Amino acid sequence: MLQRRVTNDGLAASFPAMTQHLQPLGSDLLDRFSSIVGSNNAFRAETDVAPFTSEMRGLWPGRTALVLRPGSVEEVSAILRLASETGTAIVPQGGNTGLVGGQMPDMSGRQVILSMGRMNRIREIDLSSNTITAEAGVVLQTLQEAADRADRLFPLSLASQGSAQIGGNLSSNAGGTGVLAYGNARELCLGVEVVLPTGEVLDDLRKLKKDNTGYDLKNLFVGAEGTLGIITAAVMKLVPKPKGREVAWIGLASPRDALALYEIAAERAGGSLTAFELAIAPALSFVLTHVEGTRAPLACAHPWHVLMEVSSGRSREDARQLIELILQAALDKGLVEDAVLAQNLTQAGEFWRLREAMSEAQRPEGVSIKHDISVPVAAIPAFIDEAWAAATRIEPAARLVCFGHMGDGNLHYNISQPKGGDGAAFKALYGTINRAVHNVVRAHGGSISAEHGIGVMKRDELLETAPPVAIDLMRRIKRAFDPAGIMNPGKLI
Amino acid sequence: MLQRRVTNDGLAASFPAMTQHLQPLGSDLLDRFSSIVGSNNAFRAETDVAPFTSEMRGLWPGRTALVLRPGSVEEVSAILRLASETGTAIVPQGGNTGLVGGQMPDMSGRQVILSMGRMNRIREIDLSSNTITAEAGVVLQTLQEAADRADRLFPLSLASQGSAQIGGNLSSNAGGTGVLAYGNARELCLGVEVVLPTGEVLDDLRKLKKDNTGYDLKNLFVGAEGTLGIITAAVMKLVPKPKGREVAWIGLASPRDALALYEIAAERAGGSLTAFELAIAPALSFVLTHVEGTRAPLACAHPWHVLMEVSSGRSREDARQLIELILQAALDKGLVEDAVLAQNLTQAGEFWRLREAMSEAQRPEGVSIKHDISVPVAAIPAFIDEAWAAATRIEPAARLVCFGHMGDGNLHYNISQPKGGDGAAFKALYGTINRAVHNVVRAHGGSISAEHGIGVMKRDELLETAPPVAIDLMRRIKRAFDPAGIMNPGKLI
Repeated sequence: MLQRRVTNDGLAASFPAMTQHLQPLGSDLLDRFSSIVGSNNAFRAETDVAPFTSEMRGLWPGRTALVLRPGSVEEVSAILRLASETGTAIVPQGGNTGLVGGQMPDMSGRQVILSMGRMNRIREIDLSSNTITAEAGVVLQTLQEAADRADRLFPLSLASQGSAQIGGNLSSNAGGTGVLAYGNARELCLGVEVVLPTGEVLDDLRKLKKDNTGYDLKNLFVGAEGTLGIITAAVMKLVPKPKGREVAWIGLASPRDALALYEIAAERAGGSLTAFELAIAPALSFVLTHVEGTRAPLACAHPWHVLMEVSSGRSREDARQLIELILQAALDKGLVEDAVLAQNLTQAGEFWRLREAMSEAQRPEGVSIKHDISVPVAAIPAFIDEAWAAATRIEPAARLVCFGHMGDGNLHYNISQPKGGDGAAFKALYGTINRAVHNVVRAHGGSISAEHGIGVMKRDELLETAPPVAIDLMRRIKRAFDPAGIMNPGKLI
Repeated sequence: MLQRRVTNDGLAASFPAMTQHLQPLGSDLLDRFSSIVGSNNAFRAETDVAPFTSEMRGLWPGRTALVLRPGSVEEVSAILRLASETGTAIVPQGGNTGLVGGQMPDMSGRQVILSMGRMNRIREIDLSSNTITAEAGVVLQTLQEAADRADRLFPLSLASQGSAQIGGNLSSNAGGTGVLAYGNARELCLGVEVVLPTGEVLDDLRKLKKDNTGYDLKNLFVGAEGTLGIITAAVMKLVPKPKGREVAWIGLASPRDALALYEIAAERAGGSLTAFELAIAPALSFVLTHVEGTRAPLACAHPWHVLMEVSSGRSREDARQLIELILQAALDKGLVEDAVLAQNLTQAGEFWRLREAMSEAQRPEGVSIKHDISVPVAAIPAFIDEAWAAATRIEPAARLVCFGHMGDGNLHYNISQPKGGDGAAFKALYGTINRAVHNVVRAHGGSISAEHGIGVMKRDELLETAPPVAIDLMRRIKRAFDPAGIMNPGKLI
């Protein structure tokens, strides 16, 4: 049923056979689609479509005959109605920052890209209900800034926030650094407006914290990667802006000590613990080596590091008191080798920049094999050890560059090629090392995609390794919502 | 397609025609079902089944030829396999505390009750991951106590917790008083084990905060009221036990002042604001009149009351400081008529008892017409006024006994019969007043079932008033998961 292709990275991907080796879309059909959005917003020329058919890692090249840029829910509806009538595959695309190829068309040229960037209106900010209603194409950072101007915090925060769009964040149920205290995209979303494959519009833009009127449709569309319909707008939660924040950089001996520190912090601070990020030494030293203007927060080297942030609705002094209480308790138990509090906002920003630059700073060190995994928080130390044993059995000189959201049980368990070694040879191990690490993930009841989604990249692995009962239910949902299979075919399921 | 019946309360309910006016279940079939659980756990005699075929409000009488009490997931699986083969309707039942009839069989006698009380094992408590894995039949209070013994808090808390079971709490996505800070049953659930109508078992008992591997199946089963499958176990979140709690009772002039107070409290306390309950004066005075051993917290009468609770992970002093800060800010703005802090745990318990007894205390005052609604928090004052105008146009002498979880936008907007008036005449207005109040709910983008679910009680209204697109999607899900229609037919959808 499925045909397989091998990408330039040794990763296998599969697409439904139906969209392969077919004639290109007829120009009549392209004209009909284009007339819905107007010719200014329908791109066909190679140079115009190029930005939409490649993504930042160069892993998932695609082709398309047409990029449509609708400006309203009515236009999205008309596009999907026509797509349904004609059996045309639609690939929704937000800011094109996805890391698993979910936003990419296949190589057939027969999939039409629906780019949401023109639907970028913030429809409403409701200060009393603490909600913001935004269209899918609003850039995450724009949304954060709008909240900030309204003296609120929109806590979804991730590296690509300057170009990622909220529609894509919802479709991939994005995570990031704010999940620990505030939840992921799903938990921050109260209601959605969705265009179904038939063109029908589901208006479920509610602002309710409690609503038990039937099946939870919202959470089906969130995280569905555009395979069930297109989210065109959403009601998102806002939270009060903290009156004070304190950031500490902490050097530790081991993930086990980091776990013990986390337990103390979670117990004392509860919802005031707004970040708990773990990083292994090389993740920091790569940043210090390759990113200009960075410097080590602590005087000596440490095997592991934690960036911990505490926020207070009362005052900066209150946040400082709380973080000092936590650090003192950890020092008393011998969990901490050294620690420093950011002395001001600038320094706090510098600490965060170290953490945020870790992914980028791997690049100059050569090829990286990456994993976006989660396990129960308690299993993190064992997972790190066991996965490392498995990976070094394959390549003993590989370097572990593991960092991530420890408080969520979510690590970017990245592995860099041997220093000065052969990048291509290491890249050829991508699939082998992936499988070895993911086997350890599964042994701990973990997830092989904690926050980046499935897309094309992990689809085969999901189909092969998830419980068949779960896959069967997902297929039933897909068929029930999109019987013609026009929504982002070849992705997720 | 649907036949309608009118209950003894003037409420219309409907059941699929297929289960009506049919021959009783044959004794061969009853024997086959019984042999799965053993004769000790299969009830057929009228007296044995009686506790399972009536519920506390006497609104939804049912009949059944068989109550099955399985002791394991394997037995549940075998029961559903046989039910699928033979087209037998199954009604899952937990602690039988539901308020909308979702746990009741119809009057045909052809629906088999599957009572989950014997599956009452706590499978695991994981202190590092802060999770508890419990079978569906664990009573909520038992679960709370197990968490307490492990020095953790399981924050789901509701009036019927002494008999309600966690499986039913999940199937109805229960709310209660802990939602404000900790979330409802859905948000507290990390993973589920579900037996599908075919008897297949979906093992999704994960402990993960982040998991983006496909469609969100968990959230479909949570809140589905047993119409898609049977939840047999779940992984629930635990939270650190607060080190200090402070409870204040506050008298205010209006819901508008209560909203302003709530905004101050939410801003200052954030996740430390663990309760914000609103009540109108008669809700309190009914308790003082009818519940022995209660007394008014404040010296004078006030039109409205708020019970506010603040918790701290640090200390009782910290909680007191925070609640005093909030009250001082509210006093400065003239929002509060009078306020008192509980002086000790006993008094805090007394304040909570006043709130919890409000529903019961309505009974001696005669007939009540009840609504479990939510609106955006900001709309609460306007909703209360407008709904009251609508209700008093129908019965000018009715008494508003409104109380609930203001911080969640969720009110039990109950209306008691005119003092000393004709109860039966008032009861006859149930549907009329429901419709009038629910119209105001809808005008504010609210929900007609915030935390009790749909069941039989609100099914017709849901089908008539929800967007047809949403109903159509829900029906597609129902057909995809339960094509034979054996799971709790006539409920929810």
